[in-house]
Amino acid sequence: MFSADQPDKQIAALGETSLIEAIRNWLGTASPPAPEGTGDDCAILEPIRKGSQLLTTDALTYQQHFDDSVSPEAAGAKLIKRNISDIAAMGGVPKAAVLALLAGPDLSIDWLQKFFAGVATASKQYGIQIVGGDVSSIQKGHFSAVLSLTGGSHQPALRSSAKIGDSIYVTGSLGGSILKKHYDFEPRLKEGQWLAQHTACTAMMDLTDGLSKDLLAILPASGCAALRMDQIPIAADAIQLSKSSQRSPLEHAFIDGEDYELLFTLSATSDQTAFENEWRTAFPKLEIHAIGALQHPEQPEHRLLNASTGQIIPWSNGFEHFSQCQPKTS
Amino acid sequence: MFSADQPDKQIAALGETSLIEAIRNWLGTASPPAPEGTGDDCAILEPIRKGSQLLTTDALTYQQHFDDSVSPEAAGAKLIKRNISDIAAMGGVPKAAVLALLAGPDLSIDWLQKFFAGVATASKQYGIQIVGGDVSSIQKGHFSAVLSLTGGSHQPALRSSAKIGDSIYVTGSLGGSILKKHYDFEPRLKEGQWLAQHTACTAMMDLTDGLSKDLLAILPASGCAALRMDQIPIAADAIQLSKSSQRSPLEHAFIDGEDYELLFTLSATSDQTAFENEWRTAFPKLEIHAIGALQHPEQPEHRLLNASTGQIIPWSNGFEHFSQCQPKTS
Repeated sequence: MFSADQPDKQIAALGETSLIEAIRNWLGTASPPAPEGTGDDCAILEPIRKGSQLLTTDALTYQQHFDDSVSPEAAGAKLIKRNISDIAAMGGVPKAAVLALLAGPDLSIDWLQKFFAGVATASKQYGIQIVGGDVSSIQKGHFSAVLSLTGGSHQPALRSSAKIGDSIYVTGSLGGSILKKHYDFEPRLKEGQWLAQHTACTAMMDLTDGLSKDLLAILPASGCAALRMDQIPIAADAIQLSKSSQRSPLEHAFIDGEDYELLFTLSATSDQTAFENEWRTAFPKLEIHAIGALQHPEQPEHRLLNASTGQIIPWSNGFEHFSQCQPKTS
Repeated sequence: MFSADQPDKQIAALGETSLIEAIRNWLGTASPPAPEGTGDDCAILEPIRKGSQLLTTDALTYQQHFDDSVSPEAAGAKLIKRNISDIAAMGGVPKAAVLALLAGPDLSIDWLQKFFAGVATASKQYGIQIVGGDVSSIQKGHFSAVLSLTGGSHQPALRSSAKIGDSIYVTGSLGGSILKKHYDFEPRLKEGQWLAQHTACTAMMDLTDGLSKDLLAILPASGCAALRMDQIPIAADAIQLSKSSQRSPLEHAFIDGEDYELLFTLSATSDQTAFENEWRTAFPKLEIHAIGALQHPEQPEHRLLNASTGQIIPWSNGFEHFSQCQPKTS
């Protein structure tokens, strides 16, 4: 469990200095010593001499991004992977991260050790290093961790560079992530790198807030998305969830967050069939679907349309953190 | 006040999308748009072509780093300044930051606007830009913000490079920061840059956990610090605090955290008088004090000694976040 009842099993028993030492030990080779890593006022990173440098930050909060049904190892891995997904969405190579821990004094030492085991394993898997951090005390029973991750990219893919006429693609399948995928996913790192350097790819982002909300971020000014509803890839868990949610599987595919798939656009002048063949050769295990195209809207308020009927898609926004009463993962 | 009673004055009334838009507006020119700043999956930073890149992270948590006696503007500025102090301690030039906000749904919109006004003002003052961020919802009545800050440095000053024989210096005066200085301070940015490029300076760090704890971090392996107790610069607020704390002003100077002064060492072969004259010319308004020297200990367990008596200094550690019952600033 997340909190420990016995005082000697709580992180308060360690004190700050011993806690930081313990975290360094738990991270092992995933966290180099100073000056490249932890132990000084700042980490000194290998500078990026060519290309661009990327920086992103994402939090992982108890009852918001995970609950007691998620193992501590999986929660630690999720913190890493959701940041990796942001680097993947720009086509970057992830490099170094700093981790700020905010924990109540009653947090279980055992739980935290397993959390950092998950952080260490995922860091090694994706080739990043935890080069610094911060610990501070918050209220009992609470836990947050914030990771800030750097990356490098020769040709970062942007959200804002899609054009009218481009076709819209997604990787994988969508919806129902609350059942498992929100923590049990593979950030599309290799795929994002491949897409960012592909001349046909005009824009890219990762799907975290739900297709209907994220699509808005990739629309060019005064553009709309005409969507082929029969091409939206619906995840098996979206179908499963619809049995008890009174929502259709398609609605889940549109509004559920945390798919951690890639949403990208292909230039109108590109050969879609040739592109799809190249994709299948490069990534035979991950499907992509052409779900629609970017158009000039007939009316300015049109943003997401059903391409067959011309009607506005009813689910206008994905997950909103502050306007929902219940945490997403409980 | 921190939390708002009326629902229409709480951030939950905005929802996530509008909240992020509001934050961008509040930050104004302190936060550039994508691709250099906010609005894409990552920020794209100007790469560092020469010298080293620095990265640090620090949190600011309600009831831990500020309380209701601190204005929201001062809290926002403190988040920036405590990270700037880490860059200063390496002699770096601060550049770009990402900010993760963790707030309860009842947080006052008005309070948050003033907090970001403080963030924006301090960002402009120290020449940094907020290039990205994250918002997530935590329990009612709670607030944390985590800043991760990059910097550049041609010659970063380390903690680990002090040698036996070096003299130990501090800037400013120490202790009693809980009364005001913990938020009302100037990070020693110019001073840190000046020291890092000075050939006599062998090591540097900022004082955040209290002199007695921070000194341990700068000791070379099997070295001890012999301290001139009459040269420890005691802040007026340490004297003020001692009137009600049953601790001496000197004890406060040793154990209180958040001085945000610089602790640095000078090479044994350097001319201290010449150095001090150079300092006075460069920084006439900020005093430095030579508080002791690094020595070989007579006994291995000796770390901090009174140079006159040879006795161990009784206050062995500064502030420990998790082992204290009361938050630091209340």
